[in-house]
Amino acid sequence: MSGACLLTGAAGFIGSHLADRLLAMGLTVAGVDNLSLGKSSHLATAMQARTFKFQELDVNDYPKFLDFAAEVHRQTPIQTIWHLAANSDIQAGGSNPDIDLCSTFLTSFHSLKVAQQLGIPEFVLASTSAVYGAQDRELTEDGGPWFPISNYGAMKLASEAALSSALERFLQRAWIFRFPNVVGSRATHGAIFDFVRKLRRTPHELEVLGNGSQEKPYLHVSELIEGMIHLWTSSRERLNYYNIAPDRGATTVRHIAEETIRVVSPQASIRYTGGDRGWVGDVPRFRYSIDKLKASGWCPSLSSDEAVDRAIREVAAENPV
Amino acid sequence: MSGACLLTGAAGFIGSHLADRLLAMGLTVAGVDNLSLGKSSHLATAMQARTFKFQELDVNDYPKFLDFAAEVHRQTPIQTIWHLAANSDIQAGGSNPDIDLCSTFLTSFHSLKVAQQLGIPEFVLASTSAVYGAQDRELTEDGGPWFPISNYGAMKLASEAALSSALERFLQRAWIFRFPNVVGSRATHGAIFDFVRKLRRTPHELEVLGNGSQEKPYLHVSELIEGMIHLWTSSRERLNYYNIAPDRGATTVRHIAEETIRVVSPQASIRYTGGDRGWVGDVPRFRYSIDKLKASGWCPSLSSDEAVDRAIREVAAENPV
Repeated sequence: MSGACLLTGAAGFIGSHLADRLLAMGLTVAGVDNLSLGKSSHLATAMQARTFKFQELDVNDYPKFLDFAAEVHRQTPIQTIWHLAANSDIQAGGSNPDIDLCSTFLTSFHSLKVAQQLGIPEFVLASTSAVYGAQDRELTEDGGPWFPISNYGAMKLASEAALSSALERFLQRAWIFRFPNVVGSRATHGAIFDFVRKLRRTPHELEVLGNGSQEKPYLHVSELIEGMIHLWTSSRERLNYYNIAPDRGATTVRHIAEETIRVVSPQASIRYTGGDRGWVGDVPRFRYSIDKLKASGWCPSLSSDEAVDRAIREVAAENPV
Repeated sequence: MSGACLLTGAAGFIGSHLADRLLAMGLTVAGVDNLSLGKSSHLATAMQARTFKFQELDVNDYPKFLDFAAEVHRQTPIQTIWHLAANSDIQAGGSNPDIDLCSTFLTSFHSLKVAQQLGIPEFVLASTSAVYGAQDRELTEDGGPWFPISNYGAMKLASEAALSSALERFLQRAWIFRFPNVVGSRATHGAIFDFVRKLRRTPHELEVLGNGSQEKPYLHVSELIEGMIHLWTSSRERLNYYNIAPDRGATTVRHIAEETIRVVSPQASIRYTGGDRGWVGDVPRFRYSIDKLKASGWCPSLSSDEAVDRAIREVAAENPV
């Protein structure tokens, strides 16, 4: 590893953990974030590193983004763009397609343009299980066809396609990491975050969208970061695309609701709104193959439930009464 | 069939033939085109139909596009959007990613927005073999994964993804038609068009990009239109996605060059620039499965060579000395 990393979405939930990890490896990290979903407080640790630079800007303000990247590149050549900027509120993107067009796809497009313009050789794209759409079969990287059912999934698949074309034209190497639901400290959205906040407001009742039976694999953010670093430093294909998910289990919304209540507000009762999907575009359950990840020599150690239970405590501590 | 069709790219090569065909079925057709690649002369036949409306506008000028569609919709409810507007010059899009972002993807995005806004139930997307990228295996609709190698292919795959999400949220039915190379009268790009024009300018020599061995299936535009109409009127899935291609054979660039010379300028010699790809992002050869198309009860009758040979005569006649 040498050279700098340009990290978009640096102040976000996952981006800020990644910044910390790359800095701990002794790398130079240039982070950008428009702070629409990210928070500068997430960068408190990173800001203490001498090799961290941060600029508040919107990746879709292309001239400004290019200027910042070019200035970094002059001082320490950028080896890798880690593109984590995206709309992380999938549900919000369902009602207004402009949100995922801009935040999820055009940020990818503009990050790829910076790579082309500056001759940056490596690109890492944070992608998602949502690219697969709603499928009954186990989701393997080499299956298909994929028809996403959310704008978020569609615009991530669009980002993968743009990356694939860029790899043909100018990139030397690329990684696509398809995340499951990711949980842990600094979360800014998701079931755990929502439930903790709801219970802080109304400690006696928790409203849960759907019937609680939606069941998905949850990965703790600390393990996601380890997996990405492992694959980035060890995989040697031109295009490296991986599902990253826990090895064991999946967690129901019911479990999350009950465990959050136990930690935050034991006297609360649950009111389910009903139906098997929390919202339009939600994939109610899926099975994620991580055989390819395991074959790479690494695998998460926490089960889905263990990741959730740890995250509930972290998020509860970060969102006190 | 009832209601109106909204047709984007109506003055284009394929769009104008489709307009003629839909009008011949007695349908109301509202066409739009920004005339950047399309030509108003292509609409000479359509303009004679009482049920044809045309407005020159750019689909990416969303308020204007929506206004026009809404006005049509008030008079004759639009049943189907046929979205054919796209950058058809794949090669040009290779050097400037903005071209396919805007012309190939954002036109799809805005057409889907119009469907959502007006409650139009059906959407037909013109897609492409280029979504599959460069693959050794036969290209079947239900394979995967797909990693496009051109910006054009990437932005068509992005369009398919956006359509898939729209189908989950508001469309009632959708069609994705993946075209091979399409040839015939009114062509505005492609090997035949280029060769005819080059030979008109320099009748003694034809420069051919690559070594002539690139081999692809070519479909005559008349058969493409028949196939689309067949699938539109007969398929009953919510999402109907089909390869459309000739049943027999593929045609080498060498054959196209030699046959064009025979028709246009028999004394010319060929100069190959060398290499197995004509340009970056070109897929040098592919095998296209049309088993799914055949199972629908229709199949093209012209071989790839027959389609090419007919198209050379048509294009030569349209581009006289």
